[in-house]
Amino acid sequence: MEKIDIEKNGFVYPMPIALLGTKIEDKVNFMALGWVMRACMNPPLLTVSVNKNHLTSKAIRKNKTFSVNFPNVDMIEKTDYCGLVSGKMTDKSDLFEIYYGNLKTAPMIKKCPLSLEYKLIDIYEMPTSNLFIGEIKSTYTEKQYLTDNKPDIKKINPAVLTMPDNNYWTVGKKIAKAWNIGKNLKKDD
Amino acid sequence: MEKIDIEKNGFVYPMPIALLGTKIEDKVNFMALGWVMRACMNPPLLTVSVNKNHLTSKAIRKNKTFSVNFPNVDMIEKTDYCGLVSGKMTDKSDLFEIYYGNLKTAPMIKKCPLSLEYKLIDIYEMPTSNLFIGEIKSTYTEKQYLTDNKPDIKKINPAVLTMPDNNYWTVGKKIAKAWNIGKNLKKDD
Repeated sequence: MEKIDIEKNGFVYPMPIALLGTKIEDKVNFMALGWVMRACMNPPLLTVSVNKNHLTSKAIRKNKTFSVNFPNVDMIEKTDYCGLVSGKMTDKSDLFEIYYGNLKTAPMIKKCPLSLEYKLIDIYEMPTSNLFIGEIKSTYTEKQYLTDNKPDIKKINPAVLTMPDNNYWTVGKKIAKAWNIGKNLKKDD
Repeated sequence: MEKIDIEKNGFVYPMPIALLGTKIEDKVNFMALGWVMRACMNPPLLTVSVNKNHLTSKAIRKNKTFSVNFPNVDMIEKTDYCGLVSGKMTDKSDLFEIYYGNLKTAPMIKKCPLSLEYKLIDIYEMPTSNLFIGEIKSTYTEKQYLTDNKPDIKKINPAVLTMPDNNYWTVGKKIAKAWNIGKNLKKDD
């Protein structure tokens, strides 16, 4: 079928959905986050994109630490709420039970099955958003979410996000092993 | 249950899985890509992280264009293969039927339901990988993958990737509308 050019404003398909945790003036704040990725294997760096006007940008610059928390599907209403209201206008500090890890100033959400904490390394400036590049300092989870000492997606039950239709989805069934199924196509083995 | 710190090498959970297309010395090349995200809304920027040693890094620097193609689950074997073999050693130019868009030098995969083409804007250097920041120039799809003129995940049927367990997964069922379900928690409405 014929290819059509639909728009310049295309999105990654699908995106993870996470909650970006910061602390500012003794208040914790969480922002809904779909623009997040691993940036470097060694050292373990991650990058997030945050709109310049968001309170989160100010908080990361000030405290130089932040967290990325992966909610399960049962938390989708609260996760979406964090994307609807600004920390400038609404205090989100009572929304979740929180804890701190080694960095002490990056609040994490107890109910999230998986949370990573970061130390800010650098900021890459763009017109409307900035990339915050952070070094992963710890990955927090609970024994109940692990299989063979690794996070198990069936136990964690995270969501993914699609734009511009703006929907949240579950993760479905296993298709194949990565760095493995493709071996069938190798001619020299 | 008690939180445990499992590692510094944590990952985004889950990640999209895409194929990064480049052209180098008249050959097209595709790399399996999980480290990709939107970076800025206006202008529409995207960033990908690519290991410095990959042929893809050289190709993007040279041609200053690249593509990100989202395969469907039926293409997972070929997608994984692109992550297993280096373009330096193996010619991957016959693996897919390709086409070009407006930029002319960013090869895209016909069978992928959704492909975006980018013009390189900047490179952010890190120890083992670099971020390539690209401006989205076009989003290519086919009418059969659209509902209400937007990409429809049930028609596109993409995969997601989890690490470090290294598995591919389907996307499951719709949970809720984004920027909507959270309104239930607003107190001032």
